This record gives sequence, C-alpha cells and structure tokens, in this order.
Amino acid sequence: MTDSTHRRLIIAGSGIAGLSAAIYAARSNNDPLVFEGTEPGGQLTLTTDVANYPGFPDGIGGPELVQNMKEQATQFGAEVEHGVVESVVRSNDAFHVTMKNGDEYTADAFIAASGASARTLGVPGEDLLMGYGVSTCATCDGAFFRDEDMLVVGGGDAAMEEATFLTKFADTVYIAHRREEFRAEDYWIDRVMEQVEAGDIEILRNTEVMEIHGSPEEGVSHVTLVENESGHPSDNLEDPDTEQYDFDVGAVFLAIGHTPNTDYLADTGVELDDRGYLYTHGGRDGGQTATDVPGIFGAGDVVDHHYQQAATAGGMGVKAALDADDYLEELGRAGNEGKETVEASSDD
Amino acid sequence: MTDSTHRRLIIAGSGIAGLSAAIYAARSNNDPLVFEGTEPGGQLTLTTDVANYPGFPDGIGGPELVQNMKEQATQFGAEVEHGVVESVVRSNDAFHVTMKNGDEYTADAFIAASGASARTLGVPGEDLLMGYGVSTCATCDGAFFRDEDMLVVGGGDAAMEEATFLTKFADTVYIAHRREEFRAEDYWIDRVMEQVEAGDIEILRNTEVMEIHGSPEEGVSHVTLVENESGHPSDNLEDPDTEQYDFDVGAVFLAIGHTPNTDYLADTGVELDDRGYLYTHGGRDGGQTATDVPGIFGAGDVVDHHYQQAATAGGMGVKAALDADDYLEELGRAGNEGKETVEASSDD
Repeated sequence: MTDSTHRRLIIAGSGIAGLSAAIYAARSNNDPLVFEGTEPGGQLTLTTDVANYPGFPDGIGGPELVQNMKEQATQFGAEVEHGVVESVVRSNDAFHVTMKNGDEYTADAFIAASGASARTLGVPGEDLLMGYGVSTCATCDGAFFRDEDMLVVGGGDAAMEEATFLTKFADTVYIAHRREEFRAEDYWIDRVMEQVEAGDIEILRNTEVMEIHGSPEEGVSHVTLVENESGHPSDNLEDPDTEQYDFDVGAVFLAIGHTPNTDYLADTGVELDDRGYLYTHGGRDGGQTATDVPGIFGAGDVVDHHYQQAATAGGMGVKAALDADDYLEELGRAGNEGKETVEASSDD
Repeated sequence: MTDSTHRRLIIAGSGIAGLSAAIYAARSNNDPLVFEGTEPGGQLTLTTDVANYPGFPDGIGGPELVQNMKEQATQFGAEVEHGVVESVVRSNDAFHVTMKNGDEYTADAFIAASGASARTLGVPGEDLLMGYGVSTCATCDGAFFRDEDMLVVGGGDAAMEEATFLTKFADTVYIAHRREEFRAEDYWIDRVMEQVEAGDIEILRNTEVMEIHGSPEEGVSHVTLVENESGHPSDNLEDPDTEQYDFDVGAVFLAIGHTPNTDYLADTGVELDDRGYLYTHGGRDGGQTATDVPGIFGAGDVVDHHYQQAATAGGMGVKAALDADDYLEELGRAGNEGKETVEASSDD
C-alpha cells in the first residue's frame, strides 16, 4: 500500500447525503474521497422533477441537483470516483477500505452515506422478469411499455409519484396496495385522485401480488393478485373472503420501500438495527451522526428509515462532515501528543 | 374571533427552517401561515454569498436563497405574512397565538422556527453606540466605515467571515478573540490567515473588550481591551499578567453567538434548556422535532445550538412539517371519533 491511498476521510455514497458531506468536508480541508457506489448519484437520480428541495421554486431535475452538488464538492477539493466499497476493517490507526475491484485504501475517518436499495416482493417470477417488465424505477423504464396496462405496487410517496408519472405512457395504471389507506403525502394522493377521476389510474386496495407471469423474451403477461378488504391479504389466504385472480398487465413497477446498504460495514462491528439501518447517536449536541465505532459516521437513508427526503439527507450529510471534522481535529491533537494518547483518550 | 383566523398550522419564523417547513406543510395541505418575525428571512439574509448550501455550485446570495424558498412555499399554498408572535397559549382544542400588534389567531399545530438573535457583550458603551459604530452585521453596516480600522469580536465562522468581508472596506481589520484557538471551520481560518499575511487582518488572541467609547454623534472612537495569554482575560483581571489598554477603532462588529428566540413560548410550558433553546425529542423515528407539548414542533436555530447551517436548518424544517402532518392527521382521526378521544389519546 502506498501513501497515495491514504485519505483523511472516505465517504461511501454519492447521493445527496454523501455529496453534502463532501462539500463541507472539502471546505474543512479533510481531503474527502467519495466512492460513487452501485447507484452513482443515489436515488434522487431516478426522480425527474424534485419540487420540494428547498431553494428551487421551479423545481429541479434529480440528476441536475445531484450534478450541482458534485460540482460544488469537487470545486472545494473533494474527489469523486467510481467504485463500490466491499468491506471496511477497523485497525488501530486507520480504517482499511477494500473495494469490489480489489483496490485498497486507508482512511482516518469514514462516512457511510451508502443509502438504501429498492426492495423486492420475493414472489415467483419476479427475479426471472426483473429488467424484462419488472422494474424498481418508473422514471428509468416507464417509456418502454407505452400503451400497455401497468401495475405499480406500493402505497407511499414513491408509489404515487411513479403511478402519476406512468400515466404519460400507460393505457391504464393500476396501483396495488396491501392496505386500505395510503401512507403517501396528501400532495401525491391528490395528484393520484385527479388521475383516478380522469380514468387513467385505478386503485386496487387491500391487494397484493402473489406471482408475476411471463418470460424474458415476451415480458410480463399477467400477475396473480389476492384481495381481502381487511388488508394484508397474503397473510389471510385461508380466509374465505380472500379472493385470488389473474390480472393482465404488461409491466410491474415495485415501490415498496428500500433496504439500507450496510453489509460492507459488518466487520467494523458497528451497530445496526434489525433491518440493517445504521445507529447514530442523535441527541442535541455535536456528534449526532457518530456511530458506536469512533471515526465512523452515518448520514442519509442508510440511517434514516422515516423521513428520507433530499433535504433531510443533505442536513445529515452536513452534520456528518462537521462531526468527522471534530473527530479528525481531536485525533490530530492527540497524535501530536503521542500515539498512546489516541488509544487511551476514551478512558479520560 | 372569526373562523378566518383559525389555521391548521402556524409557523413562527421565515428563515430557512420556517420556509422549508412551509414548503412541505403546504404540499401536505396543512394550510400553513408563516409569520416573518422580527428578522424576515432570518439570519441568512445577512450573508452575501452562501457557498455551502448543497445544490448551488456557484454559490447563491443569502437573500436570494430565502426568496427562492418563500416563492416555493407560496406556490404550494403557504401564506407568509408580516408579524411577530407575542405569546402562545395552549387550550383544550387549539393554540391561541397573540401577535405583537394585538391580532389573534388559533392553530391546531405550531412550528417554532423563530431562530436566534445576535448576542451582545454587555459592556459599557455598547447599548449607547449600537447602530452608531457598533453592529452585529458586517454585511449590513461594513460599508459605512470605509478606510477606518475595525474590530471584529469573536472566534467562530461568523467572526472569520465578517472579518474577511470587512477587509474590502477597512484600513485594518482586528479580530479580538477571548481564547487562543478559533473554533471556526478551517476554510474560514485559511481565508483569514491569507489576509493576515497580506497585512489586512491582525489577530488579537486572548483579548476581550471591556468598554466601547464614543458618542452617537461621532461614532466609536476607541475601545478598552484586556489581554492575558492564558485566555479569558476578563475573568482574570487581578492577574498581574493581564494587560489593559486603549485601542483606536472606528467600528466594532460583534460575532459572539446568538440567543434563541423562545420567550413567546413561556406560557405553553414547553421545555427549554438553561440557555433558552427548545428541547425536541430527537431519536431515530418519526416525531424527532416534537417538543414535550403535543402539537408544538421546533426547527432550526431555536433548537440547534451546535451545527447552525442552512442545510441543517432546512432538514429540520422539513422534519417538523412531516411531524406536524402526522400529528394533524392523528388529531383529525381522533376528532372524527369525538373530542373526548383527543384529550384521552395520550393515556392509551
């Protein structure tokens, strides 16, 4: 390993959280190296029009907002590189970071801003047809299924937004939601209801997908649905009120939430909750983004399972950079007084 | 009181936190009414160039960023009005909000985003000369003192930024800081050090202002300073190493922190810390911006005494709007089941 592969700060993830952290970390002379991860730019790159990020009254495209932040970070001296972190190992004097391509780096501090990836249903046909009519990104794939009937699965903002977006292409968009009530913002529910009145969206409440039928060559032909008016029908298959039927659609868009990308942190011993989200200290003072492993900080959807907005991810990214800077300054001071002090400092 | 003065949500403060909350609250159909407070647009309006708000690679003027957010909020249906909240009183079915001009409103929920106001030194001459050579805003007042020597008091980002800005106008800018080390970002310390090398800034470490001399007619003539190389000299006036001397400057800029604007909340019984900052729940889940009074939420510098960045205030504003929306939806559901349920719901 050469000196050039050591950095004061490595940031995993180049979404809103990672890039916001990079802007502040670069301004604090912490020489941040950002690895873009499997989805460069993060989830916001999948959003055509971001209307609610504060500061853009006319809205801004997701990819454009991300690009703006990348430019801003690199102008202040951040480096943003392709690469996916495979594992992080903590040693006495640094974090050892191994990339999927085998490259190795060391860093004094590490910000996990690796986000979350779209969840799938785990039903028959889904894996086979992923990319052939099954998609987790309406913005990316909607236009491939013009004039077909499409099914969106989910009941949150993402599902409403995807359904609304897909009306541009679809014959009819169906939304299958396993409960009666949507948990989406009123804004999105209103937009969907306008399209329901216009006849472009139809809502299938208390309905779940049991199987997706088709072939990679021919795409999706139809799905098997179950419905029970008391909700969560797949948990009540024995209930005589549960109805199962086949339903013709040409594409299935999944918008049923996300799983945090934290596997690569397993060897650090950092604390995760039972769904894999990273624990951070929180509280009222500095160090809100600190994890229980000194020197590892978390920001964005890898931590936040509730709000998950661009503005909240950005705020956390900024906090993580400021927290990491405090940590690095402390490490520098301790280092000047001799290495022993660094190791002993938590006993003070 | 007429029906028109009742709102689902009132937001006190029109800085980054209040306006970010308003954007989201309007999109959630919560009909927010924002009162601008004593400093419309908040502290960011005093910043000429905001370089670190994520999304603007070329920077953006503080007033412009605030105006963008105001437009964004009003486009989605928020109302932003002049007015300063005098007091909030909690009653069974709503918050009663009394304005300084005597107007009264009621609201189902309330977001305190009233920020913090510049702190003063409390030394002789300061009150007399405030606005006549003593200022808490270099951006506002720097140009009035062209070619004079100026003194900036403080050691944080604000002091460094103000000192750097004032070199445009001043003969020499002096920075008086009561300690040896600055707590500012490295970015700002570097900028200041460049100006020190250029001879435009001179740093007076371990130095405090004891008195400001002058008259409203003639402005500031000089200050009395104390210095002790072990820091905080005014706490060590009896120390023989503490040196007191007069120092000629034509203007004094205070950048020594802020006091949260929470006096108007006293009658709600909401919990404040000993410096007056609002306690919010924090944690990992929803309701992070909730206070201990159900229906009152807090965001921005009225809560945050540590990070105090535009991006962190914006993130908190968004969280407050989402938390308030959850509260209002719950209140609506409880209301549909009869008023008694609302009052009893906390006993469930």
